[in-house]
Amino acid sequence: MEDRLARVRRRMAEEDFDQLVVSAPENVLYLTNFANFIHERPFLLVVDREGPLRFLMPRLERPHVEARAVGRLDLVPYREFPAPAGETWAETLRSLLASGGRVGVEPVCPLQVAEAIPGEAVATDLLEDVRMIKSAYEVGRLRYGCELVSEAHARLLAGARPGVTLPEIASAASRWMMARILEDEPSTNMLATRLTAVFQPPAVSHDPHNFTDLAMAMEPGGPHVSVVNCVVNGYGAEVERTFFLGRVPEAARGPFETMLEARRLALELTVPGADMSAVDRRVRDVFERAGYGSYLLHRTGHGLGVTGHEGPYLAEGYERTVEPGMVFTVEPGIYLPGVGGFRHSDTVLVTEEGGVLLTRGPVELDEVTLPITG
Amino acid sequence: MEDRLARVRRRMAEEDFDQLVVSAPENVLYLTNFANFIHERPFLLVVDREGPLRFLMPRLERPHVEARAVGRLDLVPYREFPAPAGETWAETLRSLLASGGRVGVEPVCPLQVAEAIPGEAVATDLLEDVRMIKSAYEVGRLRYGCELVSEAHARLLAGARPGVTLPEIASAASRWMMARILEDEPSTNMLATRLTAVFQPPAVSHDPHNFTDLAMAMEPGGPHVSVVNCVVNGYGAEVERTFFLGRVPEAARGPFETMLEARRLALELTVPGADMSAVDRRVRDVFERAGYGSYLLHRTGHGLGVTGHEGPYLAEGYERTVEPGMVFTVEPGIYLPGVGGFRHSDTVLVTEEGGVLLTRGPVELDEVTLPITG
Repeated sequence: MEDRLARVRRRMAEEDFDQLVVSAPENVLYLTNFANFIHERPFLLVVDREGPLRFLMPRLERPHVEARAVGRLDLVPYREFPAPAGETWAETLRSLLASGGRVGVEPVCPLQVAEAIPGEAVATDLLEDVRMIKSAYEVGRLRYGCELVSEAHARLLAGARPGVTLPEIASAASRWMMARILEDEPSTNMLATRLTAVFQPPAVSHDPHNFTDLAMAMEPGGPHVSVVNCVVNGYGAEVERTFFLGRVPEAARGPFETMLEARRLALELTVPGADMSAVDRRVRDVFERAGYGSYLLHRTGHGLGVTGHEGPYLAEGYERTVEPGMVFTVEPGIYLPGVGGFRHSDTVLVTEEGGVLLTRGPVELDEVTLPITG
Repeated sequence: MEDRLARVRRRMAEEDFDQLVVSAPENVLYLTNFANFIHERPFLLVVDREGPLRFLMPRLERPHVEARAVGRLDLVPYREFPAPAGETWAETLRSLLASGGRVGVEPVCPLQVAEAIPGEAVATDLLEDVRMIKSAYEVGRLRYGCELVSEAHARLLAGARPGVTLPEIASAASRWMMARILEDEPSTNMLATRLTAVFQPPAVSHDPHNFTDLAMAMEPGGPHVSVVNCVVNGYGAEVERTFFLGRVPEAARGPFETMLEARRLALELTVPGADMSAVDRRVRDVFERAGYGSYLLHRTGHGLGVTGHEGPYLAEGYERTVEPGMVFTVEPGIYLPGVGGFRHSDTVLVTEEGGVLLTRGPVELDEVTLPITG
């Protein structure tokens, strides 16, 4: 925590901020170990250039904060929301801010918070930037999550057969993950923990966020797409696979092999010094050259850390250089209506020596074509 | 949906807004039936004074939106986040806004969205206001959720005995609720559904959000506090009880009876025409007269609708009148370190004739003192 705060303060000095007001739960978690979610009672962290962090919270939550927060924190409870004049969160916040200071806020800062700041509130990405480079501790936490989802995913594939439904998979995999987590860490913070294990059968796998029919079941053939992801005590991981049961439809072979080619290239390119926009551009080229350019729906990858989706992005238009200590998903994909979705996703740690896969799972077509048994 | 939109547009005319930009997932859900969660790819709804709603979304999500959204919507996909210049969400948003217009946004609107608006972005509570008065359809949905949590809560109490742990309770109750929901509505939207069933034993019930030790178990005596709440397809409900196993410690009797007295008064006062701030004030007076004023941590109640926590609030400082069609939790509580927490929570629908309890559960001390069996 001390190291994180020191890095934030160096950036504050460089960008000439007198204070920061932090409102996003993931940034509060990053700097305090305290997890909350957005609701009508704000939790706000005030970061000065020196001294302890000051943490504004509803009085109701004070003991909860004391039980979870780590590091030097001055707790500043406000009465409640709503509250009578003189006791509101906005007035309490103003009492912590220097008049006329230049105050940094996140781009997602709620307008009502920005408007409560007496000085100039300026949106800055500095917290997202600091979070991009993971410490050894964070890499350990991310490895744990990657191991967890890899094992849960292996179990999902081992149980894959025609007729298995989404609720069966989701419930078995999340029960297994939860039992494992509680065994490893009984005081797991459920506010910073989320477990997901789902799949899409061929009829909807071309629409990657379609889970409209919860009773949907696996069927012979494919492509099915599996998704296992987690955030455990505030650290994310994901593994996803395109898989087939028993047989591979002819129309699926070309898109699958092209996806593998794009994935190989993306893994090869995600190394220190690479330009993230160019990585995405070159990966998109693979699909475009093969005639699948109009079936692209998303970027090549995204960062992971105290959330499951965050910067940096392997995306055209995101002009930034890959550095050691960054963690990405690598998940180029295409989506063909009438055929299905094609995407493997793995979590990759960038080191001085190149990318290291933190997740594992079958890759080649013969490995993801599962025999129909029992 | 048509009726909701008409009410929003009447308020836009009254408050002289040319357009609204809606970003909060609960308001998007309220106006479109489409559920999302806040992440780095914004979903934004542009409401004009007439014509169809325009819905800005990542291209990736277009089929998902088509599968879930209800009503007349023009879909305006943007490429991706991040994206090259000319294809970003901010530029796409600007193309939908009239230059120089007065644009309403929610108080929680992310600063980056407010800053992308070319005209004047003005925070307004009008969507929250419109949502406060429930339609007959919404009352039906809320009743469903209240019935669900009441039944799950009755099962929780039926299984209460010393040694039962938090994960056992949470997992059994949420499995039961999920099975029931899927039976009743197989295409339940999981993005708009959350189920919680937990309890706190006497050692931590004075700290209402303390779930640090997940292995914590029920024990003889009390007060324990149970919490069962849900959002099902976008409609919330909650029921909570203070309960004892086998025996009631002497120190718990006074606070419990005072809590019941405060609850009776709160239910009696929550009727059309009442001033919400005054309701909270009078309920707090009950605790203060009994000498428990310093153990108050929260307001008397909050609204429920497309979220589980929203306006209107039964809270001092919230100057507003109770109207038919509003739905509140009524949950006055006190928290005594070394003794425990005392709170019953029920969900109440306000009708022309007064308040109607939508949840059910035991109330009096003898009803919530459960025999230790088995």
